[in-house]
Amino acid sequence: MAGSTQKDDNGQVLALCGGVGGAKLALGLYRVLGPDRLTLVVNTGDDFEHLGLHISPDLDTVTYTLAGLSNTELGWGRANETWTFMAAVEALGGESWFRLGDGDLATHVERTRRLRAGESLTAIAGDFAARLGIRARLLPMTDDPVRTVVHTADGALPFQHYFVRLRCAPVATGFSFEGAAEAKASPDVLQALADPDLRAVVLCPSNPYLSIDPILALPDIRSALLRCAAPVVAVSPIVGGRAVKGPTAKIMAELGIPASSAAVADHYRGLLDGLVLDRADASEAAHLDLPIELTGTVMSSLQDRERLAKTVLAFAERLGSTAKERRHG
Amino acid sequence: MAGSTQKDDNGQVLALCGGVGGAKLALGLYRVLGPDRLTLVVNTGDDFEHLGLHISPDLDTVTYTLAGLSNTELGWGRANETWTFMAAVEALGGESWFRLGDGDLATHVERTRRLRAGESLTAIAGDFAARLGIRARLLPMTDDPVRTVVHTADGALPFQHYFVRLRCAPVATGFSFEGAAEAKASPDVLQALADPDLRAVVLCPSNPYLSIDPILALPDIRSALLRCAAPVVAVSPIVGGRAVKGPTAKIMAELGIPASSAAVADHYRGLLDGLVLDRADASEAAHLDLPIELTGTVMSSLQDRERLAKTVLAFAERLGSTAKERRHG
Repeated sequence: MAGSTQKDDNGQVLALCGGVGGAKLALGLYRVLGPDRLTLVVNTGDDFEHLGLHISPDLDTVTYTLAGLSNTELGWGRANETWTFMAAVEALGGESWFRLGDGDLATHVERTRRLRAGESLTAIAGDFAARLGIRARLLPMTDDPVRTVVHTADGALPFQHYFVRLRCAPVATGFSFEGAAEAKASPDVLQALADPDLRAVVLCPSNPYLSIDPILALPDIRSALLRCAAPVVAVSPIVGGRAVKGPTAKIMAELGIPASSAAVADHYRGLLDGLVLDRADASEAAHLDLPIELTGTVMSSLQDRERLAKTVLAFAERLGSTAKERRHG
Repeated sequence: MAGSTQKDDNGQVLALCGGVGGAKLALGLYRVLGPDRLTLVVNTGDDFEHLGLHISPDLDTVTYTLAGLSNTELGWGRANETWTFMAAVEALGGESWFRLGDGDLATHVERTRRLRAGESLTAIAGDFAARLGIRARLLPMTDDPVRTVVHTADGALPFQHYFVRLRCAPVATGFSFEGAAEAKASPDVLQALADPDLRAVVLCPSNPYLSIDPILALPDIRSALLRCAAPVVAVSPIVGGRAVKGPTAKIMAELGIPASSAAVADHYRGLLDGLVLDRADASEAAHLDLPIELTGTVMSSLQDRERLAKTVLAFAERLGSTAKERRHG
């Protein structure tokens, strides 16, 4: 119907994501949807204080990616980056295991200054995005402190120490999200999830344990997701038993969970209306008790990102507005 | 006498200085004296908080100069500097009138972090100097906040706004040093001034009003200077009615003071045992009622700095240990 199409063309899409892996699909969605239709709810469990600065790695990755400023060679940080600061910090005896580029540093310094002046992380992230020309809403999941802790046989590790300093080498036994139970979601996130124009909610192919779970650990986000009328669709980060990016498969093995899309679906049980998985995992489809979409989920090129985004949106549209009844039915 | 020479060769020298102009002579003294004989007491009235960072411009200029890291092309900041941070801060809407190079920024970030962790500015400055291989003691005048305020017809201005943002354009009517009356000198400064091995105190050719006066505004530094047995010698920053560097002559004119070495001597009256002035101002010598040394005071080359340092030290040595009696006599 013409009416339905028109409504869809103005509909809103909300995606939950972490850093690098999720940002690829976020960029695809942004390019396919065009301006002012995408809201990204970004994990802040990775945030930490380093060298006295408030660092929000996932927010920054998503911001740089959507602004066209990301460093595609390194896979993190900013393009055309210089490293003079880092060398000078080392010479002064400062910590250097977390690499901060000179341009990247501007984000941390300016954000830290504004946080100390009393602005919210949400307000600052929105302003940064607007100044960099991004026409999507970029929302930290919360303005309250939530810190991902990785539990290992040798004790608990703050996320960045596990992820960057120790390069995910320790064997993970579990994860916790300090502060999540008490944290309030950013009001903008709840408003976006309650928007009657919301057409789809997408769980990006980020690490379910380290990037999406911290978001879902916020009680009011989880309940808003359960309530929202739009279909909730996840894209599996597992392809052929391996993670496309990062330690997802390693973590699943350590937790005694098979590295499969079926396990991802199981992990998100109760929240999902549909799962997008790679054609390589077609054999898993039979074991899944929810609507699935088989497609190529590996995003090497910009074209890949856009094509997957289109597929995800079309899948969500097919699942349609009966999602809520189905999810609770 | 052999004994006297030996004592002199191990004697200590203390110099008061501000930024660029004073740092030239400080470098000369450092090179002539060799390791572990020079203590520099540096103005912190220029310090300010900017972008949430504690910036100590004079301390940094002296540190970079003595470490061989200073930017000789710009005349401030660090050599081999990059400016990626500044461009990125501007893009995020941050203040950019005070230029912070990427390498320079490491000093501010690391210092700010350590100050917030409870270390003193003195401890941090000493550690930075040691890490950069400097074998002189580099002491901020105080660990307490002292802020130079420039009074103008249009109102009071924080120092850096006058000096950097407005490029010294406003007509100065006077200066005040907020917090100086209550501030305690760094204990290391008082200890250095009371050292029986102190051979000379040098007031570097920094701006008397903006760089040396904030130091002298600390009551316990002023009284320790009056008490100390070593001769106190100033090098006039005025040559031929002009300041070699910076706004000294402009300020003197605005205050209705002739821009002359005699006026500098008058400004430091009661503190000095001798004044070093340029040969160009030989005619002023007759009007001065204290010992003088005529020499070339313009320091273009490294050789100039070393030569002037030697002349100043020899002059102080001639004034000798009778200085205290003479000063109070």
